[in-house]
Amino acid sequence: MLAVHVRCRVLPGSVEAFREATLANARASVQEPGILRFDVLQEDGAPERFVLVEVYRAPEDPARHKETAHYAAWRDAVADMMAEPRSSVKYGPVFPSVEAGWAGDPAAAEE
Amino acid sequence: MLAVHVRCRVLPGSVEAFREATLANARASVQEPGILRFDVLQEDGAPERFVLVEVYRAPEDPARHKETAHYAAWRDAVADMMAEPRSSVKYGPVFPSVEAGWAGDPAAAEE
Repeated sequence: MLAVHVRCRVLPGSVEAFREATLANARASVQEPGILRFDVLQEDGAPERFVLVEVYRAPEDPARHKETAHYAAWRDAVADMMAEPRSSVKYGPVFPSVEAGWAGDPAAAEE
Repeated sequence: MLAVHVRCRVLPGSVEAFREATLANARASVQEPGILRFDVLQEDGAPERFVLVEVYRAPEDPARHKETAHYAAWRDAVADMMAEPRSSVKYGPVFPSVEAGWAGDPAAAEE
């Protein structure tokens, strides 16, 4: 398992359009076998700031995600909405440590 | 539902001790009724950087978490391990939008 947090700041006039495009991408992404989660969060008090919290099963899965049609559609749709370049940070898991904890109920995860 | 991302940078000599203290806190925290997730992530290539990805059921739940014995024990244990003050950012959900998606399988979430 690995996580990628993608931080986005969009133009003030693009907040709703970015939400819609990102929702479409998230709904399709969670159907990918290599994606355990694809959460989209919007910052309190700063609606133009979003974080995509992507959780992948294996190291090759982020590259596979970027080959999908829904990723390409999202990338193109939001290209002119960004107020600054997106930043992304990769993480490894400390807790939960087992896949069951990432795909399901964290309280049920064994450590 | 609300999410809180707590970013921590610890002293180089405190990485393992921080992991252990934070694991204990996470294991206890996911048992709280108001906590849907309490993930602990460690940055690739920067092992002294962690993010706590906390997902709460209701706006009053973060304050309840801070009243628990396990939170107090963690706060005290890590007080001298920090390389800089922790920062935290609050987020609201865009996707999944329903609680089932946060507590369980995101692919099963309705939007």
